[in-house]
Amino acid sequence: MEYPSPIANLIDNLTNLPGIGPKTAQRLALHLLRRPKEEVRSLARSIWEAKQKTVYCSICNNFSDRDPCHVCSDDERDHSQICVVERPADVIAMEKTGNFDGLYHVLQGAISPTDGVGPEDIKLQELIERLRNNDVEEVIVATNPTVEGEATAMYVARMAKPTGVRVTRIARGLPEGGDLDYVDEMTLSRALDGRRDIEE
Amino acid sequence: MEYPSPIANLIDNLTNLPGIGPKTAQRLALHLLRRPKEEVRSLARSIWEAKQKTVYCSICNNFSDRDPCHVCSDDERDHSQICVVERPADVIAMEKTGNFDGLYHVLQGAISPTDGVGPEDIKLQELIERLRNNDVEEVIVATNPTVEGEATAMYVARMAKPTGVRVTRIARGLPEGGDLDYVDEMTLSRALDGRRDIEE
Repeated sequence: MEYPSPIANLIDNLTNLPGIGPKTAQRLALHLLRRPKEEVRSLARSIWEAKQKTVYCSICNNFSDRDPCHVCSDDERDHSQICVVERPADVIAMEKTGNFDGLYHVLQGAISPTDGVGPEDIKLQELIERLRNNDVEEVIVATNPTVEGEATAMYVARMAKPTGVRVTRIARGLPEGGDLDYVDEMTLSRALDGRRDIEE
Repeated sequence: MEYPSPIANLIDNLTNLPGIGPKTAQRLALHLLRRPKEEVRSLARSIWEAKQKTVYCSICNNFSDRDPCHVCSDDERDHSQICVVERPADVIAMEKTGNFDGLYHVLQGAISPTDGVGPEDIKLQELIERLRNNDVEEVIVATNPTVEGEATAMYVARMAKPTGVRVTRIARGLPEGGDLDYVDEMTLSRALDGRRDIEE
């Protein structure tokens, strides 16, 4: 005997999510079947609406509900600084420090030869275009303090050199091998303050 | 800055799931936004369809896509034996042993005074009705080997006594404090073979 097909189908779909194995998927599915209809409908709808209503900002590549996003279209922010991060979650982490009021550029990844991710697979060229066409004075590279994040930072510095824009790296106050997204606000804030020019 | 409202709403909904905290919810949400529309739609739809198309069997209280369920309406199975379990997942576990071809009764819980779950909160009365109105010869109590599962087993035995039906308990080959749902098939199969009459 197997689960009835609607339940089996749900378990299959949940198993596709990262970090969710067959046992967890089964537990989640059976949990949902015990919940009120309204709650289950709300979850299903929020999944589909998040996907439908979310767009990429054509300037910074961050997720947003409008294009350009709230940050890029905010004249109160300092448009002379661009903070470069790997993922949208890193923008949230950076904003929480309350220590940066410039713009962002989300690369949507990091250079990783072992995973087959090259410079052309992330939003690097778009960053250089922004530097060429705007009055940017400083690019703060806040990629993760990992091998891939460092390689990406070096690459940004090299590509930005012809534009004459200053390229800095947030300080290594971050724990080695960590994830920007998990760091506490004070550490991240200090790392931002201690940034230095990238030496090639 | 916060996430755009469709994303924030999705994260909120995901955080309501058991074992999923805010960080995991955020990771899942951002993962979904990176997936193709078809995959996300499929997940949302499977959640809602599982809830909509799933009914409780009016005989055994298990989840099913029809009422009575496939097990209860199967004349090939032994209708003289009823295996009593706490949850639908336990039926799947029991079926995987290949060592039982009787019927089931899903209590949808276990007696737990500390959690405020009394005998009237689970499908106990319905079980006794089944014993009164059918030619059942044996009730095999396969609730979890926990304090709650044991209390429930004793209660089943006491309530079933006036009906004259034999009440047995699967053997304690199961690890103490464990969960029926996680046990390997061989252990569960042996526990089924070693069942004994409940001594009050």
